[in-house]
This record gives sequence, structure tokens and C-alpha cells, in this order.
Amino acid sequence: MANGVLVKIISKLLRVGSAEKLEKVLRTSFPEEIKSIFSQLDHSQKNVLFNLLFNPKVASRTVRDFTPELLEELFNHMPWETALELVKKLQPDDAADLFGKLSSEKVQRFLTSLDPAQKNQISKLLAYDKTTAGGIMNSNVFSLSQTATVQEAIEAVRTQTQAPMIFYLYIIDEQKHLVGIVSLRQLIMSQPSAVLKDVMSTNVSAILVNQSQAEVAQLMTRHNFLAAPVVDEEKKLLGVITVDDVMGVIQEEATQNLYRMAGVEKDERVFTPIRKSIKNRATWLLINLATCVLAAQVVNIFEGTIQKVVMLATFLPIVASMGGISGSQTLTIMVRGLALGEVAISDAWKVIVKELYVGVANGVINGLVMAIVAYYWKGVPVLGLVLMLSMIGNLFIAALVGALVPIGLKTIKIDPAVASAVIVTTFTDCFGFFSFLGLATLLVKYLV
Amino acid sequence: MANGVLVKIISKLLRVGSAEKLEKVLRTSFPEEIKSIFSQLDHSQKNVLFNLLFNPKVASRTVRDFTPELLEELFNHMPWETALELVKKLQPDDAADLFGKLSSEKVQRFLTSLDPAQKNQISKLLAYDKTTAGGIMNSNVFSLSQTATVQEAIEAVRTQTQAPMIFYLYIIDEQKHLVGIVSLRQLIMSQPSAVLKDVMSTNVSAILVNQSQAEVAQLMTRHNFLAAPVVDEEKKLLGVITVDDVMGVIQEEATQNLYRMAGVEKDERVFTPIRKSIKNRATWLLINLATCVLAAQVVNIFEGTIQKVVMLATFLPIVASMGGISGSQTLTIMVRGLALGEVAISDAWKVIVKELYVGVANGVINGLVMAIVAYYWKGVPVLGLVLMLSMIGNLFIAALVGALVPIGLKTIKIDPAVASAVIVTTFTDCFGFFSFLGLATLLVKYLV
Repeated sequence: MANGVLVKIISKLLRVGSAEKLEKVLRTSFPEEIKSIFSQLDHSQKNVLFNLLFNPKVASRTVRDFTPELLEELFNHMPWETALELVKKLQPDDAADLFGKLSSEKVQRFLTSLDPAQKNQISKLLAYDKTTAGGIMNSNVFSLSQTATVQEAIEAVRTQTQAPMIFYLYIIDEQKHLVGIVSLRQLIMSQPSAVLKDVMSTNVSAILVNQSQAEVAQLMTRHNFLAAPVVDEEKKLLGVITVDDVMGVIQEEATQNLYRMAGVEKDERVFTPIRKSIKNRATWLLINLATCVLAAQVVNIFEGTIQKVVMLATFLPIVASMGGISGSQTLTIMVRGLALGEVAISDAWKVIVKELYVGVANGVINGLVMAIVAYYWKGVPVLGLVLMLSMIGNLFIAALVGALVPIGLKTIKIDPAVASAVIVTTFTDCFGFFSFLGLATLLVKYLV
Repeated sequence: MANGVLVKIISKLLRVGSAEKLEKVLRTSFPEEIKSIFSQLDHSQKNVLFNLLFNPKVASRTVRDFTPELLEELFNHMPWETALELVKKLQPDDAADLFGKLSSEKVQRFLTSLDPAQKNQISKLLAYDKTTAGGIMNSNVFSLSQTATVQEAIEAVRTQTQAPMIFYLYIIDEQKHLVGIVSLRQLIMSQPSAVLKDVMSTNVSAILVNQSQAEVAQLMTRHNFLAAPVVDEEKKLLGVITVDDVMGVIQEEATQNLYRMAGVEKDERVFTPIRKSIKNRATWLLINLATCVLAAQVVNIFEGTIQKVVMLATFLPIVASMGGISGSQTLTIMVRGLALGEVAISDAWKVIVKELYVGVANGVINGLVMAIVAYYWKGVPVLGLVLMLSMIGNLFIAALVGALVPIGLKTIKIDPAVASAVIVTTFTDCFGFFSFLGLATLLVKYLV
């Protein structure tokens, strides 16, 4: 889209006040485009824009979906006072998420201008690792004393407008320990004069503040929780995680799984600035280049054989590709199984045995087909045999390595998705070339 | 785990009544193991097991997580009357999901034994495509007439125990058209004597029954909906989709995205029976074999050149691998961007231009590194030049094809994740070999 058109669309969306469409248009634009668009908006248009994107109701989405570059660009165009007013109105968790994406100078300036209570709350949240329960929870949790009555609780729900999405009331004692939980439905069904202590359920599943966000997502999905309280080791109530936080995490984890397997940085999106993309991907390509050189060394050993039987070169790409695909099939099943908790380290051996069977069976099937193709193409029966045997061997190795590598990485607490693919293809390439060219060297007199 | 150990664990879990742990143990066992375990359980143990796994509260999870083979195995071991009693207690959507996984004879037998109303509800759900809103909704929706009072509504919430997870009351007119929505919180805050018509919000986002489950998931995540009503084209209320249904869909879609890219069938799990796994993956491997033969043909054309300069064979794997990785990076970003709605067909050209820049830049970086490595390794300066030029060209093609193929598939309404990877690597393999060996042929006199 030409900039002129984009400016017109944005002006129109600002007039009708559609935050959702605006967010979509901005999210699917490069930061450079946003920059040039902003310079064409007038002061009041900018104001409307910010109020649409960062009003407390939609702010968490804006912060989640926008890249750091885009948010930085937006705030650069905003008068300082307006920006501060807006930040003051955010929920503490949204503010912390926003600060996590802005430059540290901006964050410092904001923090010093906020009132002490809010500053304190946000700073605490910023101190938690972003990928733990503490990093995704909302510290603005709706809690009541266990001595309050149902009537008082209903009154409190009525007047409480700050905490978003109340499903449960968390009941605490004098030391702020979480002691019980009452659902809105239970509240409706109880006598107004009853004391919360007698109404509440004391069987509360709480999340520890330092649990990983992936664990939290698994727990909440598995139990169909809408919201779960977050506590410290002493069971003091620190915050609440709601299902909408978790849906973001599930999307994020799934995307990261996919990206890591393909050698893409987890933060990269379609509209990441070009220079950042080049840098991210170059790293991975250079690592891959190094492992390729290793595989090339294996081929290099057999240059003498290739010199004698040049048609071997023609089949090298097939050996490499089949091993790679087969390894990545096993790998994908394994990585996803580990990520979703479908397979534990303790029963991994069952899966390894299964994968070996599958690998050998497919080695035989594909090896046979390839042997027939090679025979009709080149008219050399032994070539077919060499291809078939090396394919069976390579698909066996692909299954073995594809299953073992992610389990090994998981055991030493490295995310299996990160490094598995490159390790597995290095193995299949090297072993594939070695077995194919090695066998050919042994049987070279039948090949010329 | 040996079967004896498994039986002991399961007996113990049955005694303490832990549905969750039981489900986990069974889910991570092969169907063949389950079969042998069952034959060792006594009648009453089997009964306890089924009641734990299929009580209405956890049934939806059991049905979702268990493979068809496992469910079939479980039901084979169950006396018919017990099974029927259990099915009668299920929510209609859980029953429909279960029936979707059982053999058609079993389903027919169940359907004829259910009472007409339940049969009717389940049959209707079964008629919807499993991947649409109709396929995941619960037809047991809590609705009230717009003429009822708040007091009556509270009464209804109190006595209503059948519909799971009520967040909103859906308000309908006499013809069952959805006309409004009231949250539990609004209900608490309103005068008991008020009529729902005056309390309700008429601004209701409803989902059309034939929308795809991916769209539903996107919509609900984006708007942080906890539940959304499902209507037909005339706005008649048909059911409700709750956030727990959608979390399952998000996981499923993410897994499918990942699987399709790696050439794995979407239903395959770690504990899929071996024969099924072999068949699933063989299909993909054979398709890959066919495309590899195509790439091999390109190498075949240049056998004469390789005969003269045998070291070219050593570098073939590097050319193929770098093109493949680079193409899959672009592809992954694109496929995920399209799946999450981050990029639309209309602004795809911006992304294509970006990817081309990134491809060429990384071609130059990696080509340079490779040229230097090749020069020091083989001592032939022109070899480095040939490698660099063909790598730049191949990474350009990788970016172009990696971006265009998913967009093209999306335009003709094929899931980009399914076929993109194999098409892109075929292109990068063929083009990579052609440019590398073609350039080498042109410059052959500087290479020997």
C-alpha cells in the first residue's frame, strides 16, 4: 500500500473510532511506514489514535501484538504528558509488559513520574522473569477477608471496577495468605448474611510465582481453569493469571516451537525490520554452513570413488534429503510430544523402539522404490543395492538420533526445539554420505 | 515399563481415584499395552476406571486427548449397559466428539439406544463439519426469554446444574433469535424486579455455525471472549463455544501447522500404533523421493563437468542445504503469519520485497564465508566465486519461492502448511544445483 492510501485509511478509522481495525492496519505495517504516516497526522489525530490503542480495555492486546520497534515509534510521536497519563491508567501487568518492550531510558523516565504505589507494583512485576507465572500475572487481584459477609462481597463486586474479569473472589487471612475461593455463582447462591469463611471452597489450586509460563498454560488448559491465583512459597497471594493471558502464551509457545525447528528467532514476525531479520537468520544459516562443511568433508574422503563412478554424485542429494526428512518427522513428533507433556523421559524408550521400527520399515519401502528407479535409470543393479542399503541404514540413524537428541536436550534442560534440527541433519547427512559412498567404494568394481 | 508394573500403578491409581494421573498413564501407553492391561483388571476395577475417565466433568478431556484406537480399546472392554449409561450422562458435544472417534457400528448402536431428544441433539452435532464452529460448540446452551426478570434469572442460574461454565446468559425472543446478553456480574448488579430486556446488552458478537474453528479461535483470543454464542444465518441460537473448547483448538492448530511443515500427518502422536505411523510417513517420504529424483536429474545433466572437476560433488550438499534452510525460514514466517492473520494477501507484496532483501543479504554474507572456506580448502579461487554467486542466487530464489508458494496456496484455498515445504525445497534444490553446476561448466577451464 502506498503511504498516501494508508494515511487516508487511518484517518477514516480514527473518525469512526475502530480500535480493532486500526490495530490491525498498524500491526501489518513496517515501523518505517508508521514513522512516515505519523508525520502526516495532526496533533488531535495522534491523540485519538493513542486513546484508541491504549485504553485499558484493549491495551494488553496492543502491547502483546506490537513489536518493540512499533511501540517505540508510537511513543516517540506522543507528547510526554499524554503518554504518562495513558500509562497511569494501565493495569500493572500491561504496564510491565509495555515497559519490557520500550527502551530503558523511556522506562526510567516513566517510573520516576508514577506515584509510589504504582511504581512499586510495576517494578515488582518487572523483576519477575518474563516467561514465568510472575511475568504474566496481573498483580491487581480481587481479594477479600475471610471474615467478610456474602452481602459485603456482592457490594464489593458491584463497586469494584478496576480489576478486570472477575470469576472468583480470592479469600485471604490477616497475613494475606490465600485460604479459599468463592465463585460468582456460589456468591449468588448463598445467604447474604453468611460469612465468606463458611461459603468458600478451601481446595484451591494455586500457581507458584516462579513456575514457567509453559507449565502454567498446560495446567490451565488441562483443568479448564478460567483464572488461577498466583502465590509465593508461603502461600501469600501475589496476583492472578486469567485465561486470556494463557491463550497468548499458548500461541506464543506454539509459534516458538515451530520457529526454533526452522531456525528462526522466536521474536521474528512478518513485519520485523529488515536489518533485524537479516541478523537473526544469518546466525542460523552460518551455524548450518559449518555443519554442512562437516558433511562435505565426508564426501571429500570419497572423491576418488566419485572420480571413478561419477553417477554417484547424482544420488547424493537424494541420500541427504531422505535422511533429513525422516529425521525431522521423528523429531517433530518427539519435540511436540515433550512440549505438550504427552511423553515423559521415563517412558521415552518405548517411543525410541517404535521410531526405530518405523524408520527401518520406511527405509525398506523407500529403498526398494529407489533401487528400482536407479536400476532403470542407470542400468547398474549394484547401484540400486547400494542405495537401498544406505537408505535403510540412514533412516534407522534418522529415527535413533531424531528420538534421542530431543530427549537428551530435555534431560540437560535445554529446549529440545532449539538445537535438535541442526544436530539431527548433521548426523543424517554425515552418516548418509558415509554409508552410501563407503558401500560404493567397497563395491566399486561392480559399479564401473 | 513392563506390563506388570503398569497394572500395579493403575490398580493403585484406581484405589485413590486420581482421574488425572490415570488419564496420563493411559494416554502415554500404546493401545496394545492397554489391551493386555485390561485383561488383567477385574470387573469392578474396569468399572471404577470408566467412571473416573468419563464422568461428565473430565470426559471432554479424555475424549480430546485419547486416540481413536485407545477409545475403541476402552469401549471394547466395557459391558454394553455400563457404556450406554455413561454415554447418556455426557454433554451433547462430548458425546458427539466421542462418536467421531469410535467405529460406526458402535455409534449406530449407541444412537438407537439413546432417548429421542438426546439422539436428535447429538445427530445434529455430528452433522456439522468437525473443524467448524458447529463441530466444537456445545448445543446445551443456557438461554432465557427477554421477558423474564432478573430475580427469575438468578433463580434459573441457581437451579441450573446441567450447562457447564455459565458466564453469560443468552437472551432470546419467542422465535429463539438471539437478542441480547447478560453477564453474571450484571445480574448481581441489577434490581431483582428489572426485566432482562432492559438489563441486557444488545451488542452481541455471535459466531456463525459454519465458521472454521481456526477463525473462532482467532476471534475469541483477539477479543478475550470467555464464551461466544453460535447462531445460524437467521440469528437463531444454536449453541455456545467456551474458552476451554478454544484452547484445545489453538493447541491442535499449532501442532498441525508444525506437523504439516515436517511432513507428518496431523493426527499422529507419540503413541500412534506403529503400522499407522509407517503408512502416514511413507506417503510423505515417497513424495519427497519423487521430488529428489527431479533434483538428481539436474545433477545428472552436469555429470560431464563433475567428471572433470570432481570436487564439485563435495559442495553439492552445501548448496542444497543452505537453500533448503533459507527457504524454510521464509516459509515458516509466512505460514505462521498467514495462520495467525498477521499478514493478508493484499499486503503480501511488502513481505515479499522484504524477504528478497533478506535473502540476498544473507546470500552475500554466507556466500563470502563459503568462498573463503572453499579457497583455503581447495586452493581454487574461481571455485569460491562460483559458490558465492550460486549461493546468492539460490537464497534469492529461496526467499521468492518461500514467500510466494504459501500465498499462492492460500489464494486457491489450500492450507499453506501442507504442501509448501516440499514445493520450496524442490525449487531450491533444482535451482541451486543448476546455478552452481551451470556456472562451474561455464568457468570449467579455471577450475581444473
